[in-house]
Amino acid sequence: MNEFILPLEKMVEAFRRLPGVGRKSAERMAFGILGMSEAETKDFLYAISNGKESIRPCACCGNISETDLCPICADESRDKKTVCVVEDSKAVLTFEKIKEFKGVYHVLGGVINPRNGIGPDDINIASLIDRIQKDGVSEVMIATNATVEGEATAMYISRVIKPTGVKITRLAYGIPVGADLEYADKLTLLRAIEGRREF
Amino acid sequence: MNEFILPLEKMVEAFRRLPGVGRKSAERMAFGILGMSEAETKDFLYAISNGKESIRPCACCGNISETDLCPICADESRDKKTVCVVEDSKAVLTFEKIKEFKGVYHVLGGVINPRNGIGPDDINIASLIDRIQKDGVSEVMIATNATVEGEATAMYISRVIKPTGVKITRLAYGIPVGADLEYADKLTLLRAIEGRREF
Repeated sequence: MNEFILPLEKMVEAFRRLPGVGRKSAERMAFGILGMSEAETKDFLYAISNGKESIRPCACCGNISETDLCPICADESRDKKTVCVVEDSKAVLTFEKIKEFKGVYHVLGGVINPRNGIGPDDINIASLIDRIQKDGVSEVMIATNATVEGEATAMYISRVIKPTGVKITRLAYGIPVGADLEYADKLTLLRAIEGRREF
Repeated sequence: MNEFILPLEKMVEAFRRLPGVGRKSAERMAFGILGMSEAETKDFLYAISNGKESIRPCACCGNISETDLCPICADESRDKKTVCVVEDSKAVLTFEKIKEFKGVYHVLGGVINPRNGIGPDDINIASLIDRIQKDGVSEVMIATNATVEGEATAMYISRVIKPTGVKITRLAYGIPVGADLEYADKLTLLRAIEGRREF
């Protein structure tokens, strides 16, 4: 027995399909399942299948939701005229944690990435344009990640929504608060200089 | 929405029950499932449930197996008189990888750990004694981990099997091959000195 028996290998492969899980971690998880009781395994499987079945995209913003409209879109007190555009639902949670943003979101569900065959039509851009016009949105704050693809997607979106006349903003780049200048990479430093403000 | 919606939180909690998975990783995995197609999710769940159902302990050694006897116990060419005692099936795989050990294994399924309420009767020690007597085992090589619990379990086992008259050995402790002495901890160095051999 130099290799894993087949059903174990299949379990390991399944876990490896999850983001950020390498071979060693997947093996540990598979043995973890084997070490569980039948009831514990059933609970584990139910939590996954039930989560997958009951969570769907919000009909308005694309955020994960149990209901037709997500709690944020359904909240009357949120400012529907200010829309923050993010890559995924995880980013929504990041924003919500600081409890400062009172507007609503628009979840793209990815970024434009020609190398992976993802074009503008594969992410929720058309529905953003619809919203801007239908809801009379006054500001679109683009908050895609500071990666090459995030940047390119932000540029593309700003170009296609410009004709609507909406105000378009982008999150500020710069030195992270509390960080030592010494550890800032060249590009971040460059952006921090470009974006400098008067005292 | 300051927290995860319930079904998502349940998914995160499920993943956290797996060994070595923290909150952040569990969140990433849950979102990974949400990003999968229905078919991919089905495949994932099937691999886990099928693995759990079809893998059971070998009737002889306790190693994971698809069949009544694991491939090692069923292998006629293996030396049934030399039994290597390990904590779990992962350790069996570690030994098998070096392709040098020609004996068979005995998987304890844990170690004695009074703090967690695990006593000698909770791990496969009784079946080891049975095997020694029934199969006429000539050597028991104890290869529990070099932890406090692994050590205590090794000591306990050697004491209870001593009356059978079988030869009892323990893996050698010492400096790992290729390691710089500078980085050896005090205890390892002490054991290496105790176990020193003549050229």
